[in-house]
Amino acid sequence: MARKSAFLLLSALLSVLAPVDALWPQPRSITTGSSALRLSGGFDIVIGSVRNPPSDLHQAVDRTSGFLKNDKLERLVVGRGDVDRAAVAKAKTLSRLTLSLGKGATARSIAAEAQKAVEERDEGYVLDVPADGSGATLTANSTLGLFRGLTTFSQLWYQSGSTTYTIEAPIHIEDSPAFPYRGYMLDTARNFFPVSDIKRAIDAMSWVKINQFHWHIVDSQSFPLQVPGFLELSQKGAYSSSMVYTPQDVKDIVSYAGARGIDVLVEIDTPGHTSVISKSHPEHIACAEATPWASFANEPPAGQLRLTSDATAKFTSDLLVAVSKLFPSTMLSTGGDEINASCYAQDAETQAALNATGQTFLQALNSFTQKTHGALKKAGKTPVVWEEMVLDFNVTLSPETIALVWISSQNVKGVAQKGHKLVHAASDFFYLDCGGGGWVGANPNGNSWCDPFKTWQKAYTFDPVANLTVDEAKLVLGGQHLLWTEQSGPSNLDPISWPRAASSAELFWTGPGLNVTSVLPRLHDLSFRFQQRGVHTIPLQPLWCALRPGACDLTA
Amino acid sequence: MARKSAFLLLSALLSVLAPVDALWPQPRSITTGSSALRLSGGFDIVIGSVRNPPSDLHQAVDRTSGFLKNDKLERLVVGRGDVDRAAVAKAKTLSRLTLSLGKGATARSIAAEAQKAVEERDEGYVLDVPADGSGATLTANSTLGLFRGLTTFSQLWYQSGSTTYTIEAPIHIEDSPAFPYRGYMLDTARNFFPVSDIKRAIDAMSWVKINQFHWHIVDSQSFPLQVPGFLELSQKGAYSSSMVYTPQDVKDIVSYAGARGIDVLVEIDTPGHTSVISKSHPEHIACAEATPWASFANEPPAGQLRLTSDATAKFTSDLLVAVSKLFPSTMLSTGGDEINASCYAQDAETQAALNATGQTFLQALNSFTQKTHGALKKAGKTPVVWEEMVLDFNVTLSPETIALVWISSQNVKGVAQKGHKLVHAASDFFYLDCGGGGWVGANPNGNSWCDPFKTWQKAYTFDPVANLTVDEAKLVLGGQHLLWTEQSGPSNLDPISWPRAASSAELFWTGPGLNVTSVLPRLHDLSFRFQQRGVHTIPLQPLWCALRPGACDLTA
Repeated sequence: MARKSAFLLLSALLSVLAPVDALWPQPRSITTGSSALRLSGGFDIVIGSVRNPPSDLHQAVDRTSGFLKNDKLERLVVGRGDVDRAAVAKAKTLSRLTLSLGKGATARSIAAEAQKAVEERDEGYVLDVPADGSGATLTANSTLGLFRGLTTFSQLWYQSGSTTYTIEAPIHIEDSPAFPYRGYMLDTARNFFPVSDIKRAIDAMSWVKINQFHWHIVDSQSFPLQVPGFLELSQKGAYSSSMVYTPQDVKDIVSYAGARGIDVLVEIDTPGHTSVISKSHPEHIACAEATPWASFANEPPAGQLRLTSDATAKFTSDLLVAVSKLFPSTMLSTGGDEINASCYAQDAETQAALNATGQTFLQALNSFTQKTHGALKKAGKTPVVWEEMVLDFNVTLSPETIALVWISSQNVKGVAQKGHKLVHAASDFFYLDCGGGGWVGANPNGNSWCDPFKTWQKAYTFDPVANLTVDEAKLVLGGQHLLWTEQSGPSNLDPISWPRAASSAELFWTGPGLNVTSVLPRLHDLSFRFQQRGVHTIPLQPLWCALRPGACDLTA
Repeated sequence: MARKSAFLLLSALLSVLAPVDALWPQPRSITTGSSALRLSGGFDIVIGSVRNPPSDLHQAVDRTSGFLKNDKLERLVVGRGDVDRAAVAKAKTLSRLTLSLGKGATARSIAAEAQKAVEERDEGYVLDVPADGSGATLTANSTLGLFRGLTTFSQLWYQSGSTTYTIEAPIHIEDSPAFPYRGYMLDTARNFFPVSDIKRAIDAMSWVKINQFHWHIVDSQSFPLQVPGFLELSQKGAYSSSMVYTPQDVKDIVSYAGARGIDVLVEIDTPGHTSVISKSHPEHIACAEATPWASFANEPPAGQLRLTSDATAKFTSDLLVAVSKLFPSTMLSTGGDEINASCYAQDAETQAALNATGQTFLQALNSFTQKTHGALKKAGKTPVVWEEMVLDFNVTLSPETIALVWISSQNVKGVAQKGHKLVHAASDFFYLDCGGGGWVGANPNGNSWCDPFKTWQKAYTFDPVANLTVDEAKLVLGGQHLLWTEQSGPSNLDPISWPRAASSAELFWTGPGLNVTSVLPRLHDLSFRFQQRGVHTIPLQPLWCALRPGACDLTA
């Protein structure tokens, strides 16, 4: 962590020195000057020393050119773009940004680079924008790094009248992420989201250099995923025949994400959260829709895979393998959260099987997991699980298994002590749905189980290595915001997520330690830019405040 | 209140007997049968015995016909519309709804009826939908009543395939509101909302029979209202030249609202919340943008009208009168909340004036209010004020002055004891913006000042006459939800407001006492209908729950 700390110190210093740039996340290392520089009318992004550049790099260049033309972000100061009009009118012009790959680097597609194992992705880049108008350069050792650099480049510019400019040239950035995993989770099972909404979410993720879309695609309520060989699951379990993700939809989303530097980690939650499978395979589900649901599950409807059944273990393994073929990621999540022992205790078939074999419930869970994880690993996937699988159930997990810590950030230490790589996903910091009222019916005045609302400041000030030893800290892959959608749909996907989810994106890219009190202006810039690009972020303050950095601070 | 109680008991009983209708608010009196009835292909709404029907009644009929064609709301049950397909295929058809005004009633425009003094509006109607396919009838004593009845009629129908039907004929409804004032407040000063967003909000209000749009149009942060004779206020005080409401915009909004049975209560908050006036009239504003703001105001920027200045009192009176000419409502709010004594204590000019006259601050406030309210009353308006003017400042208010109770529902009793008519607007029940995180900067982890989030259940179970005597209860005009927009804009206007704000709309139309545990299915219907009509409500539950009434209740 020594190298990281040095970067942090540098970044913290520079964030004071460089107050007007609209970058998010803040680069790990940046130096800026104070000269004005504007883009020439014929400004062009050129792919230089890259042999056989992949099509998704060409597309990324085109999108970046589009942003430079269309963002039209005026500086958030009183007077907006007019303030800089005179200063930039006679500024030198920049006519070109040239992209190059480092010597010996191969130009694989951005998607292929993004879909590598999370710790093998090379996202670093060096960006130089000289003040004298000679060409800007962007170099990296992978197309993924070039893409991250393009994302940064698109955020360097403001608009005044028809002039696109910076007042901070020269700019030199050396950047790479503090943590390899920076995610965003969306649940498409409680309520359904059309492909267009998911793509818009992916766009937003990519703009803040999130590299992992954690897709909680099915759950007890609905099974929208069409799985080849298992079509009955969605036929019987999707909310409707139009509320499904076809294999073509998945391919489309995976490709869309990949081209934007994002890997898709799909989750098929097992053995809990599977009630809906009972619609097509009642033989595999214990306590399906049993009532009162609270005696069988953490939320309605109840239903869990019969983990004592060999047939069910085979069905589950085959399903996981079939799903794994739809997603090129090296990872696949088998869930494992909220397994309800009472459900199994009340299921005659499960009890009979346990009695026949002399197994306990935990032994059966372990055995079930060995089978499903075994199949998954044979299919080339690294299993991802929720924290209970590590902490509560004494399940034997292969060492490469990655744990998502969700119940509480207090549980991070325990997971690390067990030696598992982990991703921060704690409800007390990163749950976007907390604080919006309870969704369970007949519960007057009920607030959400994880009140209060988790502010962007709360996530931003999270310490990813709190209480961890140096060795334990090495197990922290990164973190993510999460949206469980009991009370969300396309109507509020954007405002409930953005700009809040950007706070973890910066925390895990730039690293902790940035001053939360000074980043708000950049977050306003981000919000305005997102709006212009079609993502409906909320304003975090009255516009009066956004135009006057610091004026609405607590003690201003 | 005896008559109301009888209605409540009846309503409560009927809400059990009539589980599948999608009405919101629930009518005060309704009887339904169990016959299927469908709209004929040529179904028509006819304006019968109404002499010279006004154009806005014709338009309301056209909109209702549009909703009947386009809502396409399938019943929220497993199987959706298909469930009723067989039952409705051979149902009798309804070919006509005929509207009539009672004998002697004059057909004034809906807008004119809606803009009457709040207690003089006649919103009652009687709706009959016979089961035998003979014509349905809607009668009322005003076009406003007819409009409310049309709103109800549009909610009676579900869709199955191409069939629009009910399975509850015959239907007989006698309806009128429990409380005359049912409002929704929007702040367009912290952040700006284009006219199209306001119109969409008005549409939504009208669908739940809200009859009062409380428009908090200007505040310390910005002055978007173009006031004839005071154009400098918006020229200097609007966020930009395009973020203004022209007199034509206001006319458009007032007319749009009026045609939908909604009166517009505009608020020019005085003497606090006026910092922005200093941009064009520094002479009228004490402690303009003084820092630290917390020493001068409840939120930045600081600035209050110099209430000791005769010139300022005249300016304010003239401004109020000029604004009053833009709005036909009988009411105008002069605000009066959060007046900061410390600001005046630190303003040399104010102190000099107080010293010269021997007045206290409170005496000066009283004198200022007599002048401004005097001018307003001369202009024919009833003043509306926030609760502090009644409770905290010992200001002499004319008896017709209406008070908005916002700080706490605990303060209702005190306002009633002072004999003022009041509107429930308490932050502990009706603030839509609570629970979303604090907006003041440099305040790590800060949650909102009025945490937690106010759920729809919280508002729904509010008792409007709690702790009041029979005579005090007569002072309760109604209530409203409110959206202060420090962290809101067009991006989240719909999901932060709906369906939550519908809960107070029903509370104050139908009256208190309905069972909060049984209304959720109707609220789902409302949410789906709103979505279909273009208002982006949030889902309150997973679709799985919405399709299975009661299955996700706490103890189900």
